[in-house]
Amino acid sequence: MQYRRLGSSGLQLSALSFGAWVTFGGQIGRSEARNLIAAAWDNGVNFFDNAEVYAQGRAEEVMGDVIGDLRLPRDGYCVSSKVFFGAVPSPNPLQRGLSRKHVIDACHAALKRLHVEYLDLYYCHRPDPDTPIGETVLAMDTLIRQGKVLYWGTSEWSAAQIAEAVAFARAHHLYAPMMEQPQYNLLHRTRVEEEYAPLYSDAGLGTTIWSPLASGLLTGKYNDGIGADSRLATSSMDWLQAAVLGDPAEDRLGKVRRFTAVAAELGESPAQLAIAWCLRNPNVSSVILGASRVSQLEENLRALDVVARVEDAAWKKIEAAFA
Amino acid sequence: MQYRRLGSSGLQLSALSFGAWVTFGGQIGRSEARNLIAAAWDNGVNFFDNAEVYAQGRAEEVMGDVIGDLRLPRDGYCVSSKVFFGAVPSPNPLQRGLSRKHVIDACHAALKRLHVEYLDLYYCHRPDPDTPIGETVLAMDTLIRQGKVLYWGTSEWSAAQIAEAVAFARAHHLYAPMMEQPQYNLLHRTRVEEEYAPLYSDAGLGTTIWSPLASGLLTGKYNDGIGADSRLATSSMDWLQAAVLGDPAEDRLGKVRRFTAVAAELGESPAQLAIAWCLRNPNVSSVILGASRVSQLEENLRALDVVARVEDAAWKKIEAAFA
Amino acid sequence: MQYRRLGSSGLQLSALSFGAWVTFGGQIGRSEARNLIAAAWDNGVNFFDNAEVYAQGRAEEVMGDVIGDLRLPRDGYCVSSKVFFGAVPSPNPLQRGLSRKHVIDACHAALKRLHVEYLDLYYCHRPDPDTPIGETVLAMDTLIRQGKVLYWGTSEWSAAQIAEAVAFARAHHLYAPMMEQPQYNLLHRTRVEEEYAPLYSDAGLGTTIWSPLASGLLTGKYNDGIGADSRLATSSMDWLQAAVLGDPAEDRLGKVRRFTAVAAELGESPAQLAIAWCLRNPNVSSVILGASRVSQLEENLRALDVVARVEDAAWKKIEAAFA
Amino acid sequence: MQYRRLGSSGLQLSALSFGAWVTFGGQIGRSEARNLIAAAWDNGVNFFDNAEVYAQGRAEEVMGDVIGDLRLPRDGYCVSSKVFFGAVPSPNPLQRGLSRKHVIDACHAALKRLHVEYLDLYYCHRPDPDTPIGETVLAMDTLIRQGKVLYWGTSEWSAAQIAEAVAFARAHHLYAPMMEQPQYNLLHRTRVEEEYAPLYSDAGLGTTIWSPLASGLLTGKYNDGIGADSRLATSSMDWLQAAVLGDPAEDRLGKVRRFTAVAAELGESPAQLAIAWCLRNPNVSSVILGASRVSQLEENLRALDVVARVEDAAWKKIEAAFA
Repeated sequence: MQYRRLGSSGLQLSALSFGAWVTFGGQIGRSEARNLIAAAWDNGVNFFDNAEVYAQGRAEEVMGDVIGDLRLPRDGYCVSSKVFFGAVPSPNPLQRGLSRKHVIDACHAALKRLHVEYLDLYYCHRPDPDTPIGETVLAMDTLIRQGKVLYWGTSEWSAAQIAEAVAFARAHHLYAPMMEQPQYNLLHRTRVEEEYAPLYSDAGLGTTIWSPLASGLLTGKYNDGIGADSRLATSSMDWLQAAVLGDPAEDRLGKVRRFTAVAAELGESPAQLAIAWCLRNPNVSSVILGASRVSQLEENLRALDVVARVEDAAWKKIEAAFA
Repeated sequence: MQYRRLGSSGLQLSALSFGAWVTFGGQIGRSEARNLIAAAWDNGVNFFDNAEVYAQGRAEEVMGDVIGDLRLPRDGYCVSSKVFFGAVPSPNPLQRGLSRKHVIDACHAALKRLHVEYLDLYYCHRPDPDTPIGETVLAMDTLIRQGKVLYWGTSEWSAAQIAEAVAFARAHHLYAPMMEQPQYNLLHRTRVEEEYAPLYSDAGLGTTIWSPLASGLLTGKYNDGIGADSRLATSSMDWLQAAVLGDPAEDRLGKVRRFTAVAAELGESPAQLAIAWCLRNPNVSSVILGASRVSQLEENLRALDVVARVEDAAWKKIEAAFA
Repeated sequence: MQYRRLGSSGLQLSALSFGAWVTFGGQIGRSEARNLIAAAWDNGVNFFDNAEVYAQGRAEEVMGDVIGDLRLPRDGYCVSSKVFFGAVPSPNPLQRGLSRKHVIDACHAALKRLHVEYLDLYYCHRPDPDTPIGETVLAMDTLIRQGKVLYWGTSEWSAAQIAEAVAFARAHHLYAPMMEQPQYNLLHRTRVEEEYAPLYSDAGLGTTIWSPLASGLLTGKYNDGIGADSRLATSSMDWLQAAVLGDPAEDRLGKVRRFTAVAAELGESPAQLAIAWCLRNPNVSSVILGASRVSQLEENLRALDVVARVEDAAWKKIEAAFA
Repeated sequence: MQYRRLGSSGLQLSALSFGAWVTFGGQIGRSEARNLIAAAWDNGVNFFDNAEVYAQGRAEEVMGDVIGDLRLPRDGYCVSSKVFFGAVPSPNPLQRGLSRKHVIDACHAALKRLHVEYLDLYYCHRPDPDTPIGETVLAMDTLIRQGKVLYWGTSEWSAAQIAEAVAFARAHHLYAPMMEQPQYNLLHRTRVEEEYAPLYSDAGLGTTIWSPLASGLLTGKYNDGIGADSRLATSSMDWLQAAVLGDPAEDRLGKVRRFTAVAAELGESPAQLAIAWCLRNPNVSSVILGASRVSQLEENLRALDVVARVEDAAWKKIEAAFA
């Protein structure tokens, strides 16, 4: 495994990490979850990503149970939670948003579900236009000083919002956000590469990126259509299907078909190649992998070898496929 | 239910909330208290107001018991307490005022009575001329950082006193007061509308207002005199009776009679109309309703419909009745 | 009882308070201690003064036990401790001085002995030239923010040392010292009246003064020599005897004899008159009374009546006796 | 015993202290460890030095057990731990370095092993180029404010690194490092005497120095070669042997032979003389002694007498031996 610093911080996460999103608490059972965490750990993964919204908290409960069962040393792994996933509102506004109340209540609830005394990483899962950024920064700072959180950050915030949080923290001697969790992959790269650019140097921001395979699209498995047994085909995933295939005018599937052709030429798996492409960006601190089977996880963890193996000319061809 | 931000904060309280004042721990029993809280909660109320002085702490004990019984989720409701009600002094000055000692002791006592680990809102119930404002601001800031309070504010402070607290907090990087709890109703409006005006924009102050019905006077129930069975007629309420009816020269009853005539014309209940009038002020974050019967509470909660139903011309008539 | 603010703070102490010095844990037993605390409380005393050095901690244990037995309400009384009485050094330097370690360790030990969760008042019992003042200020500030201390102060520090502590606190946004505990009586007045004068206005300093009777000398009981049964006659009190009688050239006994003559003329008890004289100084927040018998305490508590009763001309005569 | 302030702080450590390095948890058993601690304590030692890396934590466990057994008063001794010994990396980067996570996790682990509620002294055992100094300063400050650490410092940091930490702390009103733990002896003196010089006056830095005997070399016991039963001869100590004997061109053994000749001339033990030489430097707060036998410890503790006994002319001769 390779380890990378989370931005300018001293925290070194595994370049490939494991996320509970979609699978834990729903699609897969407790014993499979245990096998996945164990395999990730055995392969050097030290960051396990989670959020209050994943399976409405059950993803955290399963992960907390499994990590306890496996007796992973608390000082050897990082676990995260996230507060307020904008797109899934609760009817009671006290149970959503980034007010001091919800940031603190959600932290306490995550600590309980995960059976830990502190969260290594705690994210604002989406921006909240109805809470002043300073209120959220102060709440995060208070949690860090109480020992309940180590590093705090954001997910899918605009560069302007992150910059405002950093400026507020500096003006008041508070802990500033240390990381962002954006989507990043061959089909979705502008925000990470352009919008956030000033934050890497000015604020030492790190990134833990999600969806390196664009929800599986970059594996090429949808090149010939969505199979009935595919996760994308289940009704509750309609919104995901739309998001994955995107605007037809964008021709995402066409791009992916060109990409998988290049992969075949190189003799590389498209999945590993797509993950390796993310790893080549030095501003990516960790690439979060999801998986429902150990074999799939282990294949994807070998993407690190691909980074070394593939040559510059080939990477240019890959970029051209998405032009 | 409609929800409103507490001033510029991210905390969204129900526009209509429920207060224990006068009734809990005295006039009504535990099972009625339970029915009232349950009805409020079922109607979307998420803020339950209280104070150490209400029934000498018994109002908090009853509310804490009832909320526990009903198993309301801690992250779904807000509960408040208030320290130092100037008008009811204790002989021992350590048990009154806004010194660091009493602010902290009273917080601990309220946490115990309410069976909670933190107060969502904690108010200075009256100003204390014998304590420097900075001492109180520092005590509140310390309680917030210890996790025992989320937001602190004042009740019936002058704008100048609140502004001084805000300025002290800013100068020392401390949590500033976030809300005021003033009296506000058709008969008592200058402070909220004029005196506090600069604080809404400059300090983001929210207000949780009490006595929207002027202790029942605006319902018209005293239009023909105070009945023997009325709360106002009991001897311990003499001071309240004087306050409600006011200076004869003010002709409060005359105004109310004109108001109830307009209400009759509109086919609206005077109580709902008076509450709705408060709700029309965007600087009112929440209107606190008291009630001794569920039917009365439910009627008053329907004031939100009245806001939408009554037209501008009618509101002008109402204002004219109090000219 | 009269109550006075501790300097500019909001804490209102009884103008006459009760100290454990000399008597608790030594001279008197547990039941007498209980009677004394009960009598003080019944007469409106709300401040009980103590120190780690009094009877090597036993004074605090007795006071803690007795206050617990009497079930005094925690929010109704103040209790103090003091760290580092310069004149009685421990051989191990970690167990003396005002280093961060000893200030914190001594606080924890006092909390345990007194059976309380916080000290209302915590004093540096003497200055420590071997610790930077800033280190002590920071330790006190940290204890206040942790909720273990409410107000901190000094005892027998020079005005320059107190001013340095105040300046350090202001420069770093820390809690500043709020009170001094100096000796103050008709024979010893310069420090309180002259040296500290700028601190009352500039830093809002309060004073809790000790030895209002100059260890009994001002009662006149030594006018005709020290009796064999007197506390001053016991061998372990040699140093006290020397301190009380002072430099013969000063003619302290002569002054006292003139004073008791004036008292006789006025028909007042010399003890009450001497205490009342301290109370007339508005910069004295509280006069600490020691006592080994309830009758003696009750007599001295009546000094408040003397303040009102004696006229200005008489006070001038009294001052003249000490010229 | 003589006591010295830790730099400009108020903490007074014994000029000679006891370190667990090399011996505890390995070379010697629990009962010998107990005898050593008891002998040190009886001779006035009040500082017991340790580190997470010494025998992989077992040194701390043994020391914690023994101090508990001996019932040493918590306010009478100081105990230390150290985080991140650069030269012994863990494969998992979360378990090494000076990130907020490892600084905090390692503190909690040391508290547990030593059975204490706070560490008196907590050191960064080596600098970590992969963590910003500010992150480490903030973590240390947070631990101090939480009451888990009293004083923090560094070990074998460059003067520039320490100065950066001090500057960061001052800019943000944080607790600055108070001490360094460097190697210091007759063969290794430049850093303590020259490099750190500005830090003594500007930042009040104290030093707790290790290896006053250059791992035994200065006792003269290797003057005729390394015996088979010597600690230096065991295979796991190869690196130490190389470090002790040093670059042959330096002729360390030649210098030591000249030194032991001077010692013989003076009739002093070379070990005591070498330790006494360290004590003569006023910027040395405490000299840490290791020992595997009580007799050896007691001999070395008598080095304090040597300081007084040896005259200036003799010290010049000693310095000349190392020219």
